[in-house]
Amino acid sequence: MTTEDHTALPHIVVLGAGFAGLTFAKEFPSKQARITVVDRQNHHLFQPLLYQVATAGLAAPDIAQPIRAIVSKEPNVTVLMAEVKGIDLAAKRVTLDRGELTYDYLLIALGGVTSYFGHNEWAAYAPGLKSLDDAILIRRRILLAFERAETEPDETKRRELLTTAVIGGGPTGVEMAGAISELARTVLRRDFDHIDPTRAHVLLIEGSDRILLQFPPDLSASAHRQLTRLGVEIRTSTKVKEIRPNEILFTDGTSLRAGNIVWAAGVGATPLSKTLGVDLDKAGRIKVKPDCSVPGHPEAFAVGDLATLVDRNGKQVPGVSPAAMQMARHVVRLIESELRQGKQPPEQRRAFGYFDKGSMATIGRSAAVAMVGRFKFSGFLAWAAWLSVHLVFLIGFRNRVSVFLQWVYSYFTYRRGARIITGRISEEGTGT
Amino acid sequence: MTTEDHTALPHIVVLGAGFAGLTFAKEFPSKQARITVVDRQNHHLFQPLLYQVATAGLAAPDIAQPIRAIVSKEPNVTVLMAEVKGIDLAAKRVTLDRGELTYDYLLIALGGVTSYFGHNEWAAYAPGLKSLDDAILIRRRILLAFERAETEPDETKRRELLTTAVIGGGPTGVEMAGAISELARTVLRRDFDHIDPTRAHVLLIEGSDRILLQFPPDLSASAHRQLTRLGVEIRTSTKVKEIRPNEILFTDGTSLRAGNIVWAAGVGATPLSKTLGVDLDKAGRIKVKPDCSVPGHPEAFAVGDLATLVDRNGKQVPGVSPAAMQMARHVVRLIESELRQGKQPPEQRRAFGYFDKGSMATIGRSAAVAMVGRFKFSGFLAWAAWLSVHLVFLIGFRNRVSVFLQWVYSYFTYRRGARIITGRISEEGTGT
Repeated sequence: MTTEDHTALPHIVVLGAGFAGLTFAKEFPSKQARITVVDRQNHHLFQPLLYQVATAGLAAPDIAQPIRAIVSKEPNVTVLMAEVKGIDLAAKRVTLDRGELTYDYLLIALGGVTSYFGHNEWAAYAPGLKSLDDAILIRRRILLAFERAETEPDETKRRELLTTAVIGGGPTGVEMAGAISELARTVLRRDFDHIDPTRAHVLLIEGSDRILLQFPPDLSASAHRQLTRLGVEIRTSTKVKEIRPNEILFTDGTSLRAGNIVWAAGVGATPLSKTLGVDLDKAGRIKVKPDCSVPGHPEAFAVGDLATLVDRNGKQVPGVSPAAMQMARHVVRLIESELRQGKQPPEQRRAFGYFDKGSMATIGRSAAVAMVGRFKFSGFLAWAAWLSVHLVFLIGFRNRVSVFLQWVYSYFTYRRGARIITGRISEEGTGT
Repeated sequence: MTTEDHTALPHIVVLGAGFAGLTFAKEFPSKQARITVVDRQNHHLFQPLLYQVATAGLAAPDIAQPIRAIVSKEPNVTVLMAEVKGIDLAAKRVTLDRGELTYDYLLIALGGVTSYFGHNEWAAYAPGLKSLDDAILIRRRILLAFERAETEPDETKRRELLTTAVIGGGPTGVEMAGAISELARTVLRRDFDHIDPTRAHVLLIEGSDRILLQFPPDLSASAHRQLTRLGVEIRTSTKVKEIRPNEILFTDGTSLRAGNIVWAAGVGATPLSKTLGVDLDKAGRIKVKPDCSVPGHPEAFAVGDLATLVDRNGKQVPGVSPAAMQMARHVVRLIESELRQGKQPPEQRRAFGYFDKGSMATIGRSAAVAMVGRFKFSGFLAWAAWLSVHLVFLIGFRNRVSVFLQWVYSYFTYRRGARIITGRISEEGTGT
């Protein structure tokens, strides 16, 4: 590997340029170490707005920024676009698809992958939403379903094409269901001659007895009402047994045919975690020590969706981006102080504490739920708060301006700017 | 086909929603006929800015608008997203991949395809630039070449990865070469640690003795100087004999290795023209009558890149978008007057006359050439004119605002907003 130069500075390898990896690379004092950031994409993706790319509201580049551009001003940060093939914790070595890296400190921040709970064959019929390619695939399939319905002579098949089922009533599922319903009811409304897009049928399928389980019951109920008002049919306590092409079978013996099925039900850790030889939870996440280090390897840390821990206040740290960023900052401070004051055993290091700034989930135009501490709100106020927070956290000045303008445009015109179908239509399964 | 309803109005089928097809659909008085617009994409593409998507300056949705949205206010216009499989001129019937259409009048406006002069096998090694998928593929390959060069230990291979050859010195080739050189020299300049993007090598290969053959020699010379100043090496009188993976063989026995090869050398008519049983020129274009009708079929017209004719002033009509739009307008007037006044034999119809508003080609930042009538200009003034004209003609208010802001942003920051790699990297050949 030509990228390995041997200066006196310690070498920190950061795997993954999501919220955690990027926070680390930007906030670590750059004169104290060389940092190598590895990601298999060339861009950082602002995941919370991914559903808007999938539903034709935003263009892919609006929510992605080149990693190189983000850290180009940090002098000791190197970016490598490469895939991580293996991590040898004992030898302090990472194997990439192109070469190897050795490290003094390691931050594993590879995030999660869509999990089908052992049924990976469902992926072809019910794509998940983790990458830009996923979003573009879903956008293509949803827009194509309306195009096909327009020329479909058979009434039953037409109804099937106009039915979309979103599986999983968490924030992503709620956002997707709301946005698809709005797309049909407001954006596509006037554009077809032979079908009425406002009669499109959007279902949200949830296994437990209410949607948005991570919120208190009254906010779940509010989200339920707001989503129903947007035309989404919500089925709670409905468990999926099997997914076939355009068909879902439920555990109660019933089934549903749908032109599009979107999977928003499960996120698991990247399969790489299984190869590390350390203790994992059921979702494949690394059970890190209270300081976020990997058990038995004090120089290796795992943060974000790939790690699981109970924080110093006794609370389970949730798999959300603010937690990932806080964990990354915790590790920044920890490595920084060790580099100044010498190594400490993990037991003596400060334990991580999660500060919950609040949660929110958007549902649609003027519809959302939010809670900050003990304050709960929903409807327009929650929606305005959601918009502001997401604009502020979106990386890159250009993206912020572009997204803001597109939101203003869509709000007043009831149009969407990214209603295009790209990719070869015959190769729908390639995910590109 | 369910879309065939039988009202008293005559039925006009428009094949293709490029500049010509869309002009026809928008300008034909909509109460006098039913119009069905067929396109295999759901969007109209603003081709003149496609090279900016290929070089990461604009996002794909910025230069595309849903066809349905563009004509949604025309009451008698129906849009079908379908592929044309055959045209039976005698039976007045068009076969689509989904169903059939019969017509009273037909407008064939399917445009051109990238032509490799009988060497379709070169397409895999030297993609052309006709669709959004083409542009996204080229963007991915160019950005990936820099990423790969960054980790390539071998000096020769690194130099090869940083070499891009653009074949064809017409407007598209000139634009591509200039934009790639600028991308390397200004945008990517600071972002790599192991390579110097400003040393990237961009070549423009032209078979004849000067670039921009359609312009007068002094403007060609000006373009040559401006392009050289941007760092592009121009090789005129250099003919391609064969293209292999990452290698071009020339007729003089020399060869060139390049990490990326872009084909901007040939546009031919869509292969469908060969199935019509009418006279074609060497490029496969239909030799239409002076009124733009297909010989022997007065109710069928061919316009745009698919047609060839000498106009009523004795001039060959060029294959440019203003000509395509003017031909479409000519056919609008012709059909409209026939519907009011009864059929006329093609010989008595008014012959088409092309009005040349001028031509321009952009080269890069503050660099372009233009001519309007006898006035010729180049440099900043021509560039400003190019920007204004393309903004004005870009369809859709949102797109205009978005493109304008991105140009302002790029001009002042030397950044580009769409520097993202999408699509599975292992499947580079799929064009998605």
